[in-house]
Amino acid sequence: MTDTASPTIKYYWEDLPVGTTIELGSLTVDRAEVIDFASKYDPQPFHLDDEAAARSMFGRLAASGWHTCAMVMGLMARNFLQQSSSLGSPGLEKLKWLKPVYPDDTITLRQRIIESRPMNSRPDVGLVRTLWEAFNQHGEQVLMMDGYGMFRRRTPGAAAPEAPV
Amino acid sequence: MTDTASPTIKYYWEDLPVGTTIELGSLTVDRAEVIDFASKYDPQPFHLDDEAAARSMFGRLAASGWHTCAMVMGLMARNFLQQSSSLGSPGLEKLKWLKPVYPDDTITLRQRIIESRPMNSRPDVGLVRTLWEAFNQHGEQVLMMDGYGMFRRRTPGAAAPEAPV
Repeated sequence: MTDTASPTIKYYWEDLPVGTTIELGSLTVDRAEVIDFASKYDPQPFHLDDEAAARSMFGRLAASGWHTCAMVMGLMARNFLQQSSSLGSPGLEKLKWLKPVYPDDTITLRQRIIESRPMNSRPDVGLVRTLWEAFNQHGEQVLMMDGYGMFRRRTPGAAAPEAPV
Repeated sequence: MTDTASPTIKYYWEDLPVGTTIELGSLTVDRAEVIDFASKYDPQPFHLDDEAAARSMFGRLAASGWHTCAMVMGLMARNFLQQSSSLGSPGLEKLKWLKPVYPDDTITLRQRIIESRPMNSRPDVGLVRTLWEAFNQHGEQVLMMDGYGMFRRRTPGAAAPEAPV
């Protein structure tokens, strides 16, 4: 690991001040993948079977909430983290499954930085708190997550930048 | 949907008072599955490639945190929710990835009910708040989640049971 900025990294901790909003793209939910994911990780009838789903609170076959998180993570990784100095995440402060996600839905993801500070224990790392919001093709919010990410700093040990007004 | 108790359902809302602790079993993490999950949903080098992982904070190839959640959900669904009147979850209050999860680790899951109340808006449904704790084979806690679940009630509209002392 080097402290010299890499030309392939667009986002170091310093490049993510409070207020930064990044559109993370969209994806279309695949029906076979909904069933495959649920078979492995969330085998509840409303994620697996049309008839059982029709009788459930979802009304029709719906993706596992964890599948929604995984799909959204795919957008985050491909459209942001791969171009960043990410060092992983210690966790989330909140996760809300707000609306069901159905096969053939198109999900769009946006993130906004809501807090940022250097990590006192590691002068080469900064902590960022992010709000993620995912919407379906009807403009309904289906998911919110509020959590932390650690990013290597461009300039270790420097003071935190001012948040934009 | 019927309000009559089903013989195949072991856990209605009334059967999950505060303090209830349930062991949800264990699983062993499969290396090929770690890479497959990361390829689809979390393509970061330390989840995909041994050399990149060796240079990362994980030290060696580690599972995506979302894969850990998905695997734990599998235990929860197979060893609890399938025998319950679960109506899904509105979300989590907290999620912490406490330690890396590696291929061949054995993960054991336990849940404890920490809050319980009837849903005012739906007399046939109760809300339960649960703490999930997952440990590896060394006894180290790798994951904590604190979140809500909705369960159909055995007796709609009855008062909440007293919590055990």
